[in-house]
Amino acid sequence: MLTPAQVTEHLHAEIPLTRAMQLSVSTWDGTTVTLHAPLAPNQNHADTAFGGSISTAGIMAGFCLLYLLFNDRNISTRILIQKSATEYLRPIDGDFASSASAPPPDKLEEFISTVQRKRRCRIEINSQVTSRHMLAATHTGLFVAMLY
Amino acid sequence: MLTPAQVTEHLHAEIPLTRAMQLSVSTWDGTTVTLHAPLAPNQNHADTAFGGSISTAGIMAGFCLLYLLFNDRNISTRILIQKSATEYLRPIDGDFASSASAPPPDKLEEFISTVQRKRRCRIEINSQVTSRHMLAATHTGLFVAMLY
Repeated sequence: MLTPAQVTEHLHAEIPLTRAMQLSVSTWDGTTVTLHAPLAPNQNHADTAFGGSISTAGIMAGFCLLYLLFNDRNISTRILIQKSATEYLRPIDGDFASSASAPPPDKLEEFISTVQRKRRCRIEINSQVTSRHMLAATHTGLFVAMLY
Repeated sequence: MLTPAQVTEHLHAEIPLTRAMQLSVSTWDGTTVTLHAPLAPNQNHADTAFGGSISTAGIMAGFCLLYLLFNDRNISTRILIQKSATEYLRPIDGDFASSASAPPPDKLEEFISTVQRKRRCRIEINSQVTSRHMLAATHTGLFVAMLY
């Protein structure tokens, strides 16, 4: 099982923008993943968090959730995003976090067995972006996982 | 009227992530704005363009369009995004561009006069992300423009 620091290192090596954002995986408990982003590298012209950074934090929570769910099961997949939608609910004036949780166990096992049987399957993952203990944005991502 | 180089400099100064992406405004003709992004700083784990970078390029085309439309008319506004939605249509394996065009003249003048009268107005702006002369992603942004 990968540690949050190992996943962060992997992201920064593979996706330079996550390094520029100083986005890191802070916790993973087998069900919920949480990422952290400092405000400074993600600021906009209004000194709040930039919409592009917020969307990217939402995308990455969904991506990391799927990456970790498969990794914990020793299944090698490639995960790509097909659709991304963000609603910005309030300005973010501090560091922020994004998190995503696995679907209920029966849905999750169905998804994973479909990927193994058909070599690919799509899934919608919701993530939440919070700052100062308040919900600041929601993200919905449609992802496809493909067996290597 | 601002030049593309001046707008690029402004973006890089105000929004660090656009500098990390090496996103630049390449053309503005008073109706359509086009931005350019090199692949290298925007790559993902599959050596194609990262979904977060593509969404951000879509957001920034809409943002720059509104910024330039108001700037050309000497109207000071703050522009924020409320909703962002991206459809990723095909992998991007090279540099990419994003562009957005002003609404038809009557719709545009109605929007601008509403901002001036009510101090704020929302507008939906579509942008297109292309690479190697092919449409690779579409973005829809709901923006709000507020008079300073």
